[in-house]
Order: sequence, then structure tokens, then C-alpha cells
Amino acid sequence: MEKEHAIQIDLCSSRKEKPRDDELEFGRTFADHMFVMDYTEGEGWHDARIVPYEPITIDPSAMIFHYGQSVFEGMKAYLTAEGNAQLFRPERNFKRMNHSNSRLCIPPIDEAFALKALKQLIALEKEWIPKAEGTSLYIRPFIISTEPFLGVAPARHYKFMIILSPVGAYYKEGINPIKIAVESEYVRTVKGGTGEAKTGGNYAASLKAQEAAEEGIAQVLWLDGVEKKYIEEVGSMNVFFKIDGKVVTPALNGSILEGVTRNSVIQLLKHWDVPVEERKLSMDEVFQAHQEGKLEEAFGAGTAAVISPIGELVWGEHRLNINSGKTGAVAKKLYDTLTGIQYGKTIDPFGWVMPVEERDLQSLKATV
Amino acid sequence: MEKEHAIQIDLCSSRKEKPRDDELEFGRTFADHMFVMDYTEGEGWHDARIVPYEPITIDPSAMIFHYGQSVFEGMKAYLTAEGNAQLFRPERNFKRMNHSNSRLCIPPIDEAFALKALKQLIALEKEWIPKAEGTSLYIRPFIISTEPFLGVAPARHYKFMIILSPVGAYYKEGINPIKIAVESEYVRTVKGGTGEAKTGGNYAASLKAQEAAEEGIAQVLWLDGVEKKYIEEVGSMNVFFKIDGKVVTPALNGSILEGVTRNSVIQLLKHWDVPVEERKLSMDEVFQAHQEGKLEEAFGAGTAAVISPIGELVWGEHRLNINSGKTGAVAKKLYDTLTGIQYGKTIDPFGWVMPVEERDLQSLKATV
Repeated sequence: MEKEHAIQIDLCSSRKEKPRDDELEFGRTFADHMFVMDYTEGEGWHDARIVPYEPITIDPSAMIFHYGQSVFEGMKAYLTAEGNAQLFRPERNFKRMNHSNSRLCIPPIDEAFALKALKQLIALEKEWIPKAEGTSLYIRPFIISTEPFLGVAPARHYKFMIILSPVGAYYKEGINPIKIAVESEYVRTVKGGTGEAKTGGNYAASLKAQEAAEEGIAQVLWLDGVEKKYIEEVGSMNVFFKIDGKVVTPALNGSILEGVTRNSVIQLLKHWDVPVEERKLSMDEVFQAHQEGKLEEAFGAGTAAVISPIGELVWGEHRLNINSGKTGAVAKKLYDTLTGIQYGKTIDPFGWVMPVEERDLQSLKATV
Repeated sequence: MEKEHAIQIDLCSSRKEKPRDDELEFGRTFADHMFVMDYTEGEGWHDARIVPYEPITIDPSAMIFHYGQSVFEGMKAYLTAEGNAQLFRPERNFKRMNHSNSRLCIPPIDEAFALKALKQLIALEKEWIPKAEGTSLYIRPFIISTEPFLGVAPARHYKFMIILSPVGAYYKEGINPIKIAVESEYVRTVKGGTGEAKTGGNYAASLKAQEAAEEGIAQVLWLDGVEKKYIEEVGSMNVFFKIDGKVVTPALNGSILEGVTRNSVIQLLKHWDVPVEERKLSMDEVFQAHQEGKLEEAFGAGTAAVISPIGELVWGEHRLNINSGKTGAVAKKLYDTLTGIQYGKTIDPFGWVMPVEERDLQSLKATV
């Protein structure tokens, strides 16, 4: 098993020039190397390798182009003030990847091995983690069905890849509330669908609502696909509302993605003895709370922005101003604590941080 | 416009060996050439070309691999006894492709131009249309988002391709009823989702139900995602039930794909003065009709099988035997008429058939 999973390494001949910290744009520049592993029916996952980042060659009939069988993950590597690279709960991303794989009929990956491969890749590409405040190296593991076949069936060949992209600070001028609109026409997904999985189709389905939204709307708030009454997610983040002293977030119901940031927020709130509830939450209840002056805060939670305060919520004719359009105290404390832990500035009482160490690089180099 | 859309042609140096008619397998062998066209924001669709069929080179960050923004179509070219190539209502496929494009935020294609390109491609690849009874050349037009960018937004670059695959007879031993199970856990899509569009995510979402189905179940019958009560589709076909002399099919409700075969079936039934209704149809009603001995026939309708009679319907504990497990008279007549028109054996009173002519090839060759 371990032998089969030895990581072959093929280093690039010359490293690319890195963008300046103030030029960083999300998801457009990629590091020098990537991780690749193939799956073949009967053989399983094989040929793990770290190779120069470059285009892949793939048949026009590859199933990913036709039937969308794919999953992905998103996380980040952070540089501490001491110059150490660290990850934030990466084991949860690979666990969720396998959860997504199950829904999409993709064979499971070896989570421990994927984590080892990721750490070795990050160790090799440590220079690609930008240094400026709030910047990080975005990590995108993904699996695509590559079998050249037009039949609607689970594929017999896949490619698992990890690519890296240095990203700038999400908030260039400090954490800033956004304007959200409740989506009434389009639906992201429904119970029994793929909402719990991180798969391309969910994101493809979400584009139209954003296109149709009015100017200034940063994200849309998704309601459940059945009654169009209960709150699910905001854009591609989980969402929290502070109502009358309690923080409420929609319970995982089969159509909501279980965010790593969502889970971390809940744990932090409990740690701080802030009441937090995971339950069904309707727009009616949020509206009512607002009318009664009890809607104290609202914020999204996700890997990209960490915490994204919501300053205004548009719901049909209603425009709900939340906390005078300012970042609330709970959102601010969560943001500071989470980013503090991620960048190694705050004590991590939960063991969330996973350092990438010199020996990860050594063990990789030993295989050259 | 016409000038921009001139089709460049690059012929392959040697033609591949074609599979024998009795070796044909769906979607695994591809013709010598394919059609390709690119889209670039600001420039529109450009560089239409017919080139040798070969793998494409694409960045690992291409949006299709991550956010599933894609659409496709499926149709066939048929060879008549006189040796002429013909298409069946291809203009509807390109029209539907633009409908799908709209839902997926993909820029529209020029339908008339796409049809011209298809006819030229088929004229060039006419030898690839197999000759044996029931065989055809499957046509797969598709569009994928190719921009190398990890942001969740409509892409700024796309590729529109048409690939061709010779396929064997769907029914090797004559039209034969299949066994279907009503799916109660998984949902294909829901109103407000992407069910009306032909996009990869719908098919990716559908795999799990088939995987979970018991042995011998050919396809699953999808219920609506809201009440799980009303019939939507069967596998990747539209579905019809003959109840007490009337043929009923679910009305287009926003989550059902508008099939070309579905539309043709409805027109034929009207032409024959068979009562046909497009309306909401619940499983309860179908079950009730069966109990009362009024469920006379059931069949799927789609490009691959044309008509697929349903001999048994499994619904939880119930096993509904339909028409003694035999092909019904209406299903048989529809199958014979549709395939008769497609292969030029039956008069086409509707103008559905579109011949591919020698001049299509001439006009292509003129551009070499």
C-alpha cells in the first residue's frame, strides 16, 4: 500500500516569477508544481506524483466534459510571522472530499495519504505562500472523471489533482459588510440532490441567480428548494444570524454544504459560551426579528472570506439594514480569532493548525 | 459575420479503421474529425474549424473542472436505404442548446451556423454512419468553460465542439420492455434548478440513484423534488403513460428536459387522433389506474432508444406489471413510425428530416 503510494517527483527546470503581494488576484496565478494521481478501475488510485504545473491533455469525450462527475475542495496555507507554513484543519477537507465522492459515485481517496501529499507539495512550494497581511496560498484539490466514454454511468478513470494559487487579502481595507439578496426564483439544490457535496454542478446552477441580481448585491441568499421558506446558504458560504443574543445557523439538512469554517465558528461560539443553535430558520423569522429590533448580526462563513458580515439583506420589497450596516461584535471576534489561529498569532486551543515542516520536504526529496 | 464564421478545415492524414457493425458500442469510438469553435469575451465565437479528432490540451484550473459550467446535446445521423445521410430535427437541438446556455450563463451560439457546421461535418464523415439495421452516427455537440480561473463566475472563454460516434442498434433483438424503479431518496433536480437544461450536473446527480437501485432495474423514475409525488422523467428519457385510452406525459414544469423525441411523440399522437395530455401526473394516479386495470402502457422516449417500453414499475413494495410485460400497441407504432421517418422508410409528413447533401461537402471543401 505505502509502496504503491510513493510520490514520484519531477521538478520544473526553472521557477516562475512570483506576483508581488499587491498584484495578487484570486485564482489566476498558479505555483510551479502540482500533485497528480490517477485512478483506473481494477488498479485503484496509482501513480502519485508531483510534477510541473502545466496543461493536461484529455480526450474530448472525457466524461467530465459531458456528465459533470467531479468534486473539489478549497483550503489555504498560511505563513506565520516566524516564517512557518501551516494548514487549517486540512483533514476535514479530505474527509469531506470523500463524502462528496460517495454522492458522486467517485471512488474514495486515501485521506491520510492525500494529506501527506499535500504537506509535501506545500513544503516544496513554500515560497509561493505570500507574506503580506491577510494573504495566503489557496489550495484546490479536485477529482475529475477522465474516461473517454459518452455513457451515463460512473467513470472507470479519474484524475485527482492539487493545484496552488497565491491569493491576496480578501478584505483589502479591513473587514467590510456586504449586501445580500434573498433569491426567490432560482434554487441551488434540494434534499436528495447534491447540495451536501462539493461538486461543480452546484456552482454551475448558482451562476444565474448572481447574474440576475441587482447591482451591488455581493451574493445571494439561497432558500430551500421545497418551500422556498427556509434559509440554506449565502453564495458559497454558510450563514449565521444573531437573534436576541443567540447565534442561529441552518441545521445540516442534506442540501447544505458542511463548511469547515461553519464548524469552527460553532465550536468557537460554544467555547465562548455564546448560545448557538443549528436548526431550521425561515426568512419569516429573520424578518420578524428585524422588525422587533432583535436581528443583531448576520454573517457568512467560508474559507475565502473567513467571516463576511452582512450589512443589508434585500428580500423582495424589504430592505433589512443589519447592525446599521456595520460589522457586529461577534463577527469581528470570530474573524480576528479564526485568522489569528490561521496565521499563528492567536493560541489554538483546538489543535486546528497543522504545521508543514522541513521534514515534509525532506521526505519528498528522499524520493527524487 | 459570415466571413468570421468561415469554417477552416484540417483533414487528417489517414483515416482510422472503422469498427464492424456488430462491434459497435455506444460512445467509445469516434470519427476521424470533429468541429471546434472558441469563445473569447469581447471577440465572441470565433475560429470555427473541422480538425482531426484528438485530445485537447487544457489548463488544470479550467473552470469546467471546478464549477461544471457546460451544456451538451445529443442527436443522430441516419443512413437511408438509398445511402443518403439524414438528420432528425437537428434545429431543435441547437435551439435547446441555447436554452441550456441561457440557464448556465454561457453565451449563445448562432444556431443556423451550428447547423451548417454540423451538416458539413456529417457530409465529411458520412462513411462513419454505420449501415446495419438500427445503427446510426451519434452526434454530441457540447460547450465547456475553458478559462483558467478558480473564481465562481461565468467564464470568459469557452469551447464549442461536435464529436461523432458510430453506435449500434439500441435493441439488438427487437424492442424490449425494461424494468423501472420509482426513486424515493435521490432527486434529479427541482424547479428553479437546472432540470430544463442539458448540463453535466444533472447527470452527475443522477448516478447515485442508479448505483443504489436493485439488480435488473434499467432506469429510475424521477419524482418531483418538492413533494416527491409527481412524475418527472425516467432515467434520461421523458416518460408517457397510457391510462384508460389517453396518453399522459408530465407537463414541462421547469425541471423537466424538453425532449425532441417527447415533442415528436406528442405530435404523432395528435396526428393519429390519440388523446394526449401534458399535465401533472402523480405516482398515486398511476398506481390507482393500475389497480383499476386502466394502466394500459408506459414508455420512455429519448434519442438513444427512441421508445423504451416499460414492462414493470417498482414503487416501494409495489410491483406494477404493465401490459403483461409486453410492448404496447401505441409504443410499437410510435417506435416504428419514428424510426421509419429517421431512416427514410416512412413518409415524413412533418418535415422533420433534414438531408445532408453532397453540396454540404462541396461547400466545406471549397474552404480548404
